[in-house]
Amino acid sequence: MNSIHNTSVDEFVKEILNNNISYLSRAITLVESNNLKHQAKAHQILEKCLPHSNNSIRIGITGVPGVGKSTFIEVFGKYLTGLGKKVAVLAIDPSSSIQKGSILGDKTRMQTLVNDDNAFIRPSPSGESLGGVARKTRETITLCEAAGHDVIIIETVGVGQSETTVHSMVDFFLLLKLANAGDELQGIKRGIIEMADAIAINKADGLNVKETNLAKTEFARALHLFPAKESDWIPKVVTCSATENIGIKEIYEMITEYFTLTQKNGYFYQKRNFQNKNWLFETIDNELKSDFYQNDTIQKEIVKSIKMIENQEINPFHAAKKILKIKR
Amino acid sequence: MNSIHNTSVDEFVKEILNNNISYLSRAITLVESNNLKHQAKAHQILEKCLPHSNNSIRIGITGVPGVGKSTFIEVFGKYLTGLGKKVAVLAIDPSSSIQKGSILGDKTRMQTLVNDDNAFIRPSPSGESLGGVARKTRETITLCEAAGHDVIIIETVGVGQSETTVHSMVDFFLLLKLANAGDELQGIKRGIIEMADAIAINKADGLNVKETNLAKTEFARALHLFPAKESDWIPKVVTCSATENIGIKEIYEMITEYFTLTQKNGYFYQKRNFQNKNWLFETIDNELKSDFYQNDTIQKEIVKSIKMIENQEINPFHAAKKILKIKR
Repeated sequence: MNSIHNTSVDEFVKEILNNNISYLSRAITLVESNNLKHQAKAHQILEKCLPHSNNSIRIGITGVPGVGKSTFIEVFGKYLTGLGKKVAVLAIDPSSSIQKGSILGDKTRMQTLVNDDNAFIRPSPSGESLGGVARKTRETITLCEAAGHDVIIIETVGVGQSETTVHSMVDFFLLLKLANAGDELQGIKRGIIEMADAIAINKADGLNVKETNLAKTEFARALHLFPAKESDWIPKVVTCSATENIGIKEIYEMITEYFTLTQKNGYFYQKRNFQNKNWLFETIDNELKSDFYQNDTIQKEIVKSIKMIENQEINPFHAAKKILKIKR
Repeated sequence: MNSIHNTSVDEFVKEILNNNISYLSRAITLVESNNLKHQAKAHQILEKCLPHSNNSIRIGITGVPGVGKSTFIEVFGKYLTGLGKKVAVLAIDPSSSIQKGSILGDKTRMQTLVNDDNAFIRPSPSGESLGGVARKTRETITLCEAAGHDVIIIETVGVGQSETTVHSMVDFFLLLKLANAGDELQGIKRGIIEMADAIAINKADGLNVKETNLAKTEFARALHLFPAKESDWIPKVVTCSATENIGIKEIYEMITEYFTLTQKNGYFYQKRNFQNKNWLFETIDNELKSDFYQNDTIQKEIVKSIKMIENQEINPFHAAKKILKIKR
């Protein structure tokens, strides 16, 4: 096998389309690289892979540490490969330095899935801003789909902003929870529950079963109070046990039901188009801002303005107008 | 009285600080004007009023049409003026052309409050973008506070984006609802319930009382499932009847409790600072964007890019990079 540098774009594309995992991995390395030459090559590979992408289902899975995410994804992934599906598991974890080991970084936690020929597991690119991770994950999805993966699972830790990012790139969003909601809920940011297409209450086994069923009823009632989703899908609350392999098949059937509904009513395609357009405008808006705020004079003026705003010497609107007048 | 043009900035400021309603009204007219000379004068008046503002409590009130908002605000406002408070009622209604008459535009709906010397009612500036309305409302708040108003009520219709805007400029956010939640909830956007510091179920009178109490229990249970608010305030669900003047006093006492708590724990001041800084950055970000997107070449390139993205010929990130390279 040639090195990254000696492998041509066409060879990369040909081998990725053949689901050659080693080429897929190296192409993702190019996508993740901060080297401009690598990025240019990645860009060319991506553009040739794009027409072959868009054929998978994309599932986001979130939950606070301790909920059993890794075990769930492993068992769920194995169930899917057992059905003859090719599964890719990616991660969004901008806080990887803090949450170390809580997410895919520690591959040993999905030992069985790692050794499954029909599964492809890739940890989150490390030491990156959320925007950087998001771009790289989106491009990795394209490459995995071109390589023929039918199901893309995006894992994230349910404690921060990253759920919104995951939500912006998946079709279906699954929230894993535990039954003893009181304390545990505190860790879940507001809004995540509303984004969920389904809540799966994990560890529904042994002595937990009763408590889990109670939690299920309670959450189903709470979700019922929210307005209907644009997708016409009514969010479901289910129970499962990843360690005991209970409820996994049912979760996949529920997800299949979601895709049948949304592909039929067109929401699936509409949402993907919407996500792509949003990505375009998000990139533009972020670059405009970072370009503006990086300027030293502007930074100094902002610090000064904030002080004046706090002292009630200027109103924020007029302070902004003044700052915008600074020659960039 | 001199005309707007012949009245000096200092005279405006002096009369506003004396709570001269006619000068206050004319200063708001300057704030709302799109004439650059008017805006410059408004700016000067605002800057001199700023040190005298920030002394009121700001309450946002929302609810779908039909919930009884006008009646509630009238009765609530009269209760406050009865306590010796000066009350200003402002409106945020970017959709006033569509929702015509549903909000303050129709002053006859608050006949009693309009004729109360201690109340000041100002309809939403018409025919404006939400951003424009927001800026004008924020500046109007400053003027009303300088004129000695103790309570600022910002009314909005609970059907769109405007609640987020109202939420960004008030201390306390009250959602008015009716008991028969099923259908009515559909009109309330996701997220509004989460923003609410209290939900008041209106029309709790006569044959409705039982149903209202049931709804109260149900909502209290649902709210309980959400994580604690940053303010340490636990959102309350209460019932009231504006037409029968039931529960109004209790709502004000609850709001007072909120202010006691948040002024003691510092959240009140923290939130106002945060809102002001957000307003600064919001204004900058919006101007950067409108400046960029107004360019014809850029607009054409965006349309072309969206087509290419839909056809899977380019990925959104690289399309954005290409658009950003266009000479502005």
